[in-house]
Amino acid sequence: MELGVGGSNPPCCTKTMVKEKKLKPELASGFTDRKGNELILKDRLIEIIKRNFQLYGFEPLETPGFEISENIGKFLPDEDRPMSGVFGFKDDKNWMSLRYDLTAPLARYFAANENLISKPFKRYQVGTVWRNEKPGPGRFREFIQLDADIVGTKNVSADAEMCVLLADTLNKCGLDKSEYVIKVSNRKLIQGVLEDCKITNESKKITVIRAADKLYRLGIEGVKELLGKGRKDKSGDFTKGAGLTDNQIMGIINFLKIDEISKPVNVAEELVSIIEALSPSLTYKEGMNELSQVFELTKLSKFSDQIIFSPSVVRGIEYYTGTIFEANLLFKVRNKKGEQVEFGSVGGGGRYDDLVSRFTKSTYPATGVSIGLDRLLYAISQKKDKKIKENNPVVICVFDKKKMPEYNKLLSLLRSSNINSEIYCGDGNLKAQMKYADKRNAPAVILYGDNEIKAGVVTIKNLKIGKKVSTEVKTREDWTSSSTTQATVEVKDLVNEIKKII
Amino acid sequence: MELGVGGSNPPCCTKTMVKEKKLKPELASGFTDRKGNELILKDRLIEIIKRNFQLYGFEPLETPGFEISENIGKFLPDEDRPMSGVFGFKDDKNWMSLRYDLTAPLARYFAANENLISKPFKRYQVGTVWRNEKPGPGRFREFIQLDADIVGTKNVSADAEMCVLLADTLNKCGLDKSEYVIKVSNRKLIQGVLEDCKITNESKKITVIRAADKLYRLGIEGVKELLGKGRKDKSGDFTKGAGLTDNQIMGIINFLKIDEISKPVNVAEELVSIIEALSPSLTYKEGMNELSQVFELTKLSKFSDQIIFSPSVVRGIEYYTGTIFEANLLFKVRNKKGEQVEFGSVGGGGRYDDLVSRFTKSTYPATGVSIGLDRLLYAISQKKDKKIKENNPVVICVFDKKKMPEYNKLLSLLRSSNINSEIYCGDGNLKAQMKYADKRNAPAVILYGDNEIKAGVVTIKNLKIGKKVSTEVKTREDWTSSSTTQATVEVKDLVNEIKKII
Repeated sequence: MELGVGGSNPPCCTKTMVKEKKLKPELASGFTDRKGNELILKDRLIEIIKRNFQLYGFEPLETPGFEISENIGKFLPDEDRPMSGVFGFKDDKNWMSLRYDLTAPLARYFAANENLISKPFKRYQVGTVWRNEKPGPGRFREFIQLDADIVGTKNVSADAEMCVLLADTLNKCGLDKSEYVIKVSNRKLIQGVLEDCKITNESKKITVIRAADKLYRLGIEGVKELLGKGRKDKSGDFTKGAGLTDNQIMGIINFLKIDEISKPVNVAEELVSIIEALSPSLTYKEGMNELSQVFELTKLSKFSDQIIFSPSVVRGIEYYTGTIFEANLLFKVRNKKGEQVEFGSVGGGGRYDDLVSRFTKSTYPATGVSIGLDRLLYAISQKKDKKIKENNPVVICVFDKKKMPEYNKLLSLLRSSNINSEIYCGDGNLKAQMKYADKRNAPAVILYGDNEIKAGVVTIKNLKIGKKVSTEVKTREDWTSSSTTQATVEVKDLVNEIKKII
Repeated sequence: MELGVGGSNPPCCTKTMVKEKKLKPELASGFTDRKGNELILKDRLIEIIKRNFQLYGFEPLETPGFEISENIGKFLPDEDRPMSGVFGFKDDKNWMSLRYDLTAPLARYFAANENLISKPFKRYQVGTVWRNEKPGPGRFREFIQLDADIVGTKNVSADAEMCVLLADTLNKCGLDKSEYVIKVSNRKLIQGVLEDCKITNESKKITVIRAADKLYRLGIEGVKELLGKGRKDKSGDFTKGAGLTDNQIMGIINFLKIDEISKPVNVAEELVSIIEALSPSLTYKEGMNELSQVFELTKLSKFSDQIIFSPSVVRGIEYYTGTIFEANLLFKVRNKKGEQVEFGSVGGGGRYDDLVSRFTKSTYPATGVSIGLDRLLYAISQKKDKKIKENNPVVICVFDKKKMPEYNKLLSLLRSSNINSEIYCGDGNLKAQMKYADKRNAPAVILYGDNEIKAGVVTIKNLKIGKKVSTEVKTREDWTSSSTTQATVEVKDLVNEIKKII
């Protein structure tokens, strides 16, 4: 067992240390805080996506953050990278790891409940995953995935359903059909090309696939380097290449390049010419045949134009065996420097027929989709039409603590009408209370002083149109004289007046 | 850096191992899977609680699972227990820990953003926390907390607001006012009693407070042992006691016992007699004075009868400094053996005035509440009136793959009417499809064979009232002859007919 604090090895915050010096409130490297409207939008996206997964007949599952290490194995795309990997602990009995995706735990769950659950098993899961990778700008070691999978069938209609589900989900999240495509291919295509190129070593095959997966980010030249001797990145880190011959490299590159000449190809018949042109391999032909069946089905959906063939999609994860796909945004987004950049994938998935049989005697072919929530959230939050409902509270000012019963009456009126609201709970005077309301972007503040209480009225200050004024206020008199954004109404009209403002 | 798998030390799943023997699909010790309706209810509770936190003027915050170890310190109630602690990793730069609560990370966040955020700062957070404790039945090492906190004020109205918020939240989650109480006390009471008993050593004080916190679980005799030499539990584990004298023990026990004689005391005036009777300590008097102010305010709310005084509430967490409170259920729940048992606390919190100043020059008094979601979920799911909306999909059977376009038309009708539905995506015949629909508790299956397609009708089998029949079906003929739960309707009436069933 390892103890981060409280054990004997690591540094620990003791009373003495606190007295000596203050702690620095830093984040651990590769992690971030999130707040405010971003989280409100995030919750809404999760709700939309979950609802759509249910609509498609998936049931919820939740597996724990930790799994026994050998059970989830390691099929990450980036294990060639320095510092890559998972977070692991030695327990009394086993090595445990924080999950790096939701698919490997699903295989474990399915196997453990093999005889109890309906097959095909359709489940969705929303969960945090962790990767112990080298952190970088925008590259976090903790993120949320939303997955839907079907385990226990090799039926191609399950693959087609995944592509349609992904297209429909993005649409329901607020993306217009013109703003994204689902690029579909089949792992057997590149496997066939590997056969053609006489690349037979399993580990070399994976190196090639991972290199090809980086086409979008590194371009043709970068992939060529990774297929050959290797590549040095901007930071100076060197990634060893697959060591292919020039002819082998050309074979792979020619395959990846079809994308440029064949787009858009989303009608099954058009695939035939490409099949014949490119590879004599049986594996390749099998892949093209499956693809053709997938497109027969996806063209029946509302998203026939969004779901397109793209051979350059190879997916870096090792366990895929058939249909593979990725969702790509067609609009550019701004990065932190304000530059317009291509965004890349917000989700993807594919068929993995051998993952469950690591545990079971029977084989359980499976297929699934995973949506990267943080990336999707970032892209969608850049769209101007995504307005978030005002969530900040109306603030009732405190003139006199003895009048708390009166303030509470107003509070009850507001809250029972489902209006976010609070009595100021700090220790400041009226000026401080105004500043507080302003800083919180409160839609309104409520003044209920002695005069108002006697007269049965309440004064409402609309901060939405009076933001500037409120910060200059020092006294009650200042406030009433300086503003045209106030209204004094009868207590019984309070709720309606506030509703007009928010 | 530690690598669970993929590094050099830990055992790792390699291709060779997979071929040699199958993996056992076990869970890591202290962790669990959750599924189905339990998760639907859980999502609903989270939504209700978040919404109520917003209603009370709290804004959302999300901090990461990992924090730099010394930043979150360790204030757990159980550090005297063997195996207790947090999950920690050594990174390149720092020891990092998985958070054990949401309060310590809030202190770090507040300090890091000290000059940017509005004060008092009101935030809520929903998040998983981890404790590296000895697992036991129903005792997990990963669970979800829902917290609301106010940082930056010593105003007692903030404490009162927390108690009201907790009471209101439980009510909105579906608990009747008669089913729970919020027991309130003040840490200064037991601190005063400790002064009276001449217990001055800080670490001994904490041992006493932790012992007193176990009153509910261990009873008076168990606490006496922990205050004295120590206690051996059922498993044989021995917990060393505080080593108090008999007189000191009596002093503490007499204080904890007031609960039995003073209930219900929720009216401020009645507290006076108790104040005078029990302790001459100034600290104690200060605590009683604060308590009296809290009750002045809570009695203005709708939950004046639920929020009551209970001196036996001491809270085991070290950092509390003032008001403390706990939500206790008044109904018994069934444990896994089916026995009726007391349930204990589903949430609680209190004032912690010194936690943020571990980072900052200024002091920021704070108060907060934490709800234990899994415990609340368990309790609420035992209430009979908590019906969950049917979420399982309507299943469209596949007679002939060539008819997929026809099946897809029905699917579009259903899904566009927001009805959970799917075309069967496995490889089985009609019997297998029926079994599948049955096992998934599908509300209905849809048969759309050649005859139906020609006639423009669709046959619906109601599985809700025909469950038994469906499992005996072998062929289409069996099915139509054996059941009285079927209806054949025009395609245009499909959606309405299905809506009648679900």
